[in-house]
Amino acid sequence: MPKLKLTYFDIHGGRAEPARLAMYIGGVAFEDDRISFQDFGAKRSGYPFKRVPLFVIDDVELSQGNTINRYVGKLAGLYPTDALQAAYCDEVMDAVEDIISQQGVTMFMKDEAQKKAAREALADGPIAIYLEHLQKMLDARGGEYFADGRLTVADLKVMVWVRGLRSGILDYVPTDLPDKLAPKLVEHLDRVLGHPKVDEYYARF
Amino acid sequence: MPKLKLTYFDIHGGRAEPARLAMYIGGVAFEDDRISFQDFGAKRSGYPFKRVPLFVIDDVELSQGNTINRYVGKLAGLYPTDALQAAYCDEVMDAVEDIISQQGVTMFMKDEAQKKAAREALADGPIAIYLEHLQKMLDARGGEYFADGRLTVADLKVMVWVRGLRSGILDYVPTDLPDKLAPKLVEHLDRVLGHPKVDEYYARF
Repeated sequence: MPKLKLTYFDIHGGRAEPARLAMYIGGVAFEDDRISFQDFGAKRSGYPFKRVPLFVIDDVELSQGNTINRYVGKLAGLYPTDALQAAYCDEVMDAVEDIISQQGVTMFMKDEAQKKAAREALADGPIAIYLEHLQKMLDARGGEYFADGRLTVADLKVMVWVRGLRSGILDYVPTDLPDKLAPKLVEHLDRVLGHPKVDEYYARF
Repeated sequence: MPKLKLTYFDIHGGRAEPARLAMYIGGVAFEDDRISFQDFGAKRSGYPFKRVPLFVIDDVELSQGNTINRYVGKLAGLYPTDALQAAYCDEVMDAVEDIISQQGVTMFMKDEAQKKAAREALADGPIAIYLEHLQKMLDARGGEYFADGRLTVADLKVMVWVRGLRSGILDYVPTDLPDKLAPKLVEHLDRVLGHPKVDEYYARF
């Protein structure tokens, strides 16, 4: 087994949380390297594309959240082997990455009025569209999980996003948006958080 | 063999071009459904997440450019089977998707001064960072291809992006940026365009 190390911010969310959870669920040992925003500022120029998460396999560097999710998903048994089910899993992860990138654009807006306008436009437009379409996809795939009829890294990715929306980390985006527009994604969130290993993880960390 | 249909704009670029090329190279028959921007406006609400590309496998819909690239890459023999090589391929595709999403934000800016400032900031910041780091990755992986020591969908994704930058479709982003910052990506572009099937494709279409 290679030595694995995952570097990301010290938060229960964002782009590395699905991979942390996947490795915990699958019993894959790794170094959980949590950095402060200050550390990030200091070390940024050394990270691939000047970003985190960064995953290191022995001495091989791997960047990009979903690339890491897919790789550790295979190690943890949480990624489908069938090509179409794998595509269902990828589609959901790519869609969530797309919407969190759109949210990300608003993170560094210094003008509060501009941020408010951008966040309200996101809530009325893309976030609503993504919530509704993800709910439709979940329905089409049996209603419980997004791919393979079981928990995969796609479910972890969606759960972390929906939980973030409801937590209020995005000012000007109503926290009840998922409950109003996509109640089945809220049920899905509870389903994922109720998984014995996920429940155990959040009790421990 | 299922019936395959790929819907996207009628341009030699963007998010569906790597999949079109991959299927052509691999001899995978598909319906190349090219729509006008007007068609898109009219049909938009019916597309998953209101976006294209859309790939249809018999009657199963698949959205998200890289999800489609990965699926057709497997059909065409242009996606690695080894997990680490697959991750190298994914990483490059995810990185390019990230930077084209950042470029995409500037597409709909109506204020020309705002667009100019945003594009110049992109050229000096993220586009430069991505060009330089992708060149470094190419070097680290042998200098010719991004994964598996051979042509994969990752090479097609990078080629389409670099060609787009050099074509001048992004006003205010200097077209000689790849040549100045990442000359090995320009050699890579020529290598991919020189592939017999890619060459044949652009002679025909």
